[in-house]
Parts: sequence; structure tokens; C-alpha cells
Amino acid sequence: MKHTFFTPGPAELYPTVEQHVRGALDEQIGSISHRSAQFRKLYQHVDEQLRGLLKIPKTHAILFTGSATEVWERVLMNCVEHESFHLVNGAFSRKFYDFSVELGKYAHVMEKPPGEGFDYAGVMDFGIPDYAELVCLTANETATGAQMRTVDMHKLKRSHRTKLFCVDMVSSAPYPDLDYDLIDSAFFSVQKAFGLPAGLGVWIVNEKCLDKAERLQAQQTVGTYHSLPSLWKNFKNFETPETPNVWNIYLLGKVIEDFNRIGIDTIRKETDAKARLLYAFLEKDPRFEISVKNPAHQSATVVVGTLKRGSAAELLDTAKRAGFILGGGYGSAKNTQFRIANFPAVSLEQVENLIDTLTVD
Amino acid sequence: MKHTFFTPGPAELYPTVEQHVRGALDEQIGSISHRSAQFRKLYQHVDEQLRGLLKIPKTHAILFTGSATEVWERVLMNCVEHESFHLVNGAFSRKFYDFSVELGKYAHVMEKPPGEGFDYAGVMDFGIPDYAELVCLTANETATGAQMRTVDMHKLKRSHRTKLFCVDMVSSAPYPDLDYDLIDSAFFSVQKAFGLPAGLGVWIVNEKCLDKAERLQAQQTVGTYHSLPSLWKNFKNFETPETPNVWNIYLLGKVIEDFNRIGIDTIRKETDAKARLLYAFLEKDPRFEISVKNPAHQSATVVVGTLKRGSAAELLDTAKRAGFILGGGYGSAKNTQFRIANFPAVSLEQVENLIDTLTVD
Repeated sequence: MKHTFFTPGPAELYPTVEQHVRGALDEQIGSISHRSAQFRKLYQHVDEQLRGLLKIPKTHAILFTGSATEVWERVLMNCVEHESFHLVNGAFSRKFYDFSVELGKYAHVMEKPPGEGFDYAGVMDFGIPDYAELVCLTANETATGAQMRTVDMHKLKRSHRTKLFCVDMVSSAPYPDLDYDLIDSAFFSVQKAFGLPAGLGVWIVNEKCLDKAERLQAQQTVGTYHSLPSLWKNFKNFETPETPNVWNIYLLGKVIEDFNRIGIDTIRKETDAKARLLYAFLEKDPRFEISVKNPAHQSATVVVGTLKRGSAAELLDTAKRAGFILGGGYGSAKNTQFRIANFPAVSLEQVENLIDTLTVD
Repeated sequence: MKHTFFTPGPAELYPTVEQHVRGALDEQIGSISHRSAQFRKLYQHVDEQLRGLLKIPKTHAILFTGSATEVWERVLMNCVEHESFHLVNGAFSRKFYDFSVELGKYAHVMEKPPGEGFDYAGVMDFGIPDYAELVCLTANETATGAQMRTVDMHKLKRSHRTKLFCVDMVSSAPYPDLDYDLIDSAFFSVQKAFGLPAGLGVWIVNEKCLDKAERLQAQQTVGTYHSLPSLWKNFKNFETPETPNVWNIYLLGKVIEDFNRIGIDTIRKETDAKARLLYAFLEKDPRFEISVKNPAHQSATVVVGTLKRGSAAELLDTAKRAGFILGGGYGSAKNTQFRIANFPAVSLEQVENLIDTLTVD
């Protein structure tokens, strides 16, 4: 029996992926050279389609890595000489911070308990340290379902124009409507809302970040093949330093093309509509409560519920028997929470069916 | 029209890959969690199958990266405090050396012109520097088709037991019969002789390397999620630090299983038989000569020919019209050389057909 995955990544494959995989086999995408015109066209296609989808200006490059996790490491190595600043409210935003510490940077942190989010005023009250070079924001904390609104990110950048701003949008892209005239860098992995198999990270990054990396390169190591200068130099020819995940680059171009056919506004509205259903369900059902209390911080793409009674394992089992795979609570919340990914791959009808399944009459 | 790829990577997909891709879709491999028992089984399957194929003892871990290029960086960061030593005879062995320089190590080099290879006596005459911690060997220089025999690698290690030995076997694995009681680390990428789409590197590495990385970690950065200690810790549970290329890990397990069904001895013998045909053809045809003169250094897996007259482009076109994609000469040899990959994905019959096509009566 095939299941429908409501897991926050790896997640349900976008419905067109199977047909695109067949296309990849027919076109022998697994065998083409990454130094061929055919590959450069695939890269250029992703570039053009993603720029259209997310309104990314020419100031920014679109680069490929092995994962979004890799981008945490690369952006810190390339854009931070001494100090970074992190908003941390869960396991994934914490890992971004941990990476900075491991790399020997001085990492500043503003921390909130799991389930809470950040807004402009709160961060301004806390104060971003003067010497922080890179401000690391998480659009959607996958572990807890707390999102940061783009309006707050944009205001923060306007108040700190000399600092580089980087947004982890792993489990939310393409939902956040980021203004790339403000945001210097953002990144995601393809196995979340783009509905692809894992193994490819996408790093959107501007010339200011490149300038910084080139300055740093003179005095410290910024990596080798995946240093920002190396990735950027290859990008200019729509190439990559190493043999990349060509297969996924092909699939990504196809899926973004499908997204553009639907239109980003429609995708965002559908995401909102499905999220409203899921939150209304959690609010109404006496067994559950919404984990993130502040409506402004409730994620549109990863909806997290807390059980007032009963076990999460039992709920996940009930769902699975009906063909739905839910995400468990993350880490210590394993037994008390559950996560429902609300990505474009699942339809309004599938969300309604899931809610019907979970509803006890 | 579908082509047969004789390119040295990305290369022809192994004939069973298409059926395994269908299996991956049916089993929803693109959606399963990388923290699930199902994923751990996939990892364990690769581990068991690859150990069987290459006779890898329990002293070595089998780790996944995004590419073999990544392993160049990771092994240098994790196993070299100050000094590395490299045998360089082409563009790819040179890049391994370049990475060491970029990472701020003191990289020693013994260099030979393209098309020449290394043997035990020559390297002993040159002398491996006393303070070199890691000796970096390339089993098959993909740019030129020069191989280093395993017997020479093994003898070198026996003469330098306190140094770590690392073998790049990107375009030759599973052909080289390495003795892992001697070789501390080896690595490959899956888009060469394993006949898979690109996007996955496999790093075989022993406890001595881990010990070294753990010592280094106390005093310098060895990376974050893909540091050797982090990869190894996760490997112990058949997990990975980040969401890996699960799709390719599944396919790799299936293809190695296919290889084991045939048997590694048979695969090596077939490779030798096909290589003999290709070299005999180059030797006999008055238009060509074998690029690598010393028979001991002629690669079994990437056969490189030099044109005495005519252009490589014309030859590649002739082959393409008959349905065969050959590799061009690498870099400055683009117009004068051509490369024919001799991987398990191409059969003896296909090699014979290629030779027939290229033969002028």
C-alpha cells in the first residue's frame, strides 16, 4: 500500500515527480557530462525558473550543494571572519549556531523556548551585537513549527544594513516571500516543500557575500571546491566545481516549472487554506492543542500539535493504518507532539481526508 | 535515440538501474525518513554488500558524502595536521594536491608528466618526506588513463607503516583489489564504475584515521557535520549527520548486490578482457597510439588513445552517429586524445561493436 507522507522532510514527492523521473531515464540524464552544454542548460533552467518563482534579482547567484546542512557550514566559513548572530528556538536553528561554534567563530545567540518565535521588536530589545557580521535567521523551525514572518526579517535588515542577513528556509521555501533586495542569502533543501528525493541543497547568495568571502580568503581558509568564490566562478558558466547531483537538478527544474505554471500566489494561498484547516482542527479537538501559541508565529508549512492526553505513537499508528504518515514530535517532544507537513505536494483534499481520519466522532 | 555512454563519468548507467529506479518509486524511497529503521536497513545493506564485494574489514567504516571531491577535502581536514604527500600525474591527482594547499597544509608532491605512472621503486627513490602524515595515491588518473598497481601501493605502505595511506579510486572502484589491512582510506563516487546517477561519494576509512581526526579536533577545526568523528558516530547507528542522498544509497545497495551476484572476480576478469580488446585496437590502428606507454600503468578502466592524425572531434562524431558517446581528451589534450571508459555497465559485445564502428576498413 502506498502512503501519503505528511512528514516534514523527506516528504511526499510532488505528484509530477514520477513522470519527471521517467523523463530523466528517457533522456539519459544519469549519464550526461556535467561539463556539457546539456547540463549547462539544466542549470540555467533551474536558475531562470527559480528566479521567476521567488523573484530573485541578478545580484544573487543560485548555487548547488549536497544539502542545506552543508550551506550552514559554507555560509559561516565564507561570510564570518569572527562573529555571527543566531536566533535559536529549536533543534535546527540551534545546529546552525553550533556549527559556528565548531568552526571557531564567536557565535552570539538570542534564545527562546521551543514553540516560541521571534519578531522585530523583541530582537531589537535584545540587541544584535555590533560586531556580528552575519545574522542567521530561520524562517521555519522544523522541530517546533514556529515561523518568523518575512516582514520582521525585512525590518531587522533595514535596521542593520551593514550586516549580512541569511535566512534558513529549509522547510518553508517557496512559501516565504523574501525581499532579496534586503536578504543577502537564503537556502533550502529539495526534499521538503519542493517534493523531491533528498541529496541537493540550493544556496541563494548575493555579491556582498561573495565580496566578503573573497576578502576572507586572503587570510583564512574558506574551504576548497565549495568555497563561495569557487561555486560562484563555476555558476557564471552554469557549471559546478564537482560532479553534482545532476539527476536532482533536472527534477528540480521540472518541478519549479510546474510550480510556475500554477503560480506562486496560488501555491501560497493554497498553503494558507490548508494550514487554516489544520490549525482549526487542532484547536477544536479536545485531545490536542496547537503547539505554537502566538498565531503570528504559527508555521504555514509545518503544523505542530501537542497532545493533552494519549500518546503520539498511537495517533501516528491510527494515521498510518489509514495511509497517512505523520511526523513525530522532534527530540524530547517525541511522545507529546506530532508534526504535519503542509507542502505543495499534498492537496486540500488530502488534508481534509487526513483530518477526517484523525477526527473521533 | 538512446546512446551508449563510454564516458569516464558520469557514465553509462548499469543495466539494472532503470528497474531499481522503478523499485525506488514503488517503495516510496524518496519520502522515507533518514531517521527511520527503513533507512538504517538501506545503509546497512550497502555496508554489508560493499564489505563483501571489496573485502573491507571491520576496522573500516563506510561513510557517505555528496561526492568524491568532498572526500578530498574531508580526508585532508581530518587526517593532516601539517603535511601531506601526493603523487601527481594529471588533473585529478593535482586537484587533490591543490586542496591540501588551499587548506593551508604543507603539501609535498612527486610529479610525473601526463600519461606516466608511479611504481614502488620510483617513489622510494624520490622519497616520501619524513613528516608527511597522509600519503595520497590515485589508483586511476581519470584525465590520462594512467593507473597505479595495487601491489605498488601495498609495498609503499609496508615501507611506511606509520603514515596514513589514502587511495582515490574514483574511476576504478571496484576494480582495484586493495588490501584494507594496509590501506587506511579509499573512496569513490557512484557515477563511474558503479553506473549510477551522480550525487553520492563513498568514503572507506579506518580507525587510525578516526583517531587522528579526534586528536586534531582538539586543536583545529576538522569541519562540522561531515567531520570524520561526526560521520563515524552516525555510521555506528547506520545513520548520517544530514539528510543524505537516500535515493542513491538505495540504488547503490541494489547495484552492489547485482555485482556480488556476478562476483567480483568475474567483474575484474571481464574488465581485463574488454581492456585487452580496446588496447589491441589502439595498437593495431595506424591512426592511434596508446597514450600510456608503460603497460604496467595502462588503466583497465579508462582507456586513453592519442591521435597520430585527424581530430578527436571527428572521431567522437563518428562514434556518436553510431550511438556511442566517447570521452574527449581532458583539458589541453581535448583535440589530440579520446577516453573510453571500460566500466561494468558496458558489455564485451558493446565494446566489440564500438571497435567495429571505429575501425576503418
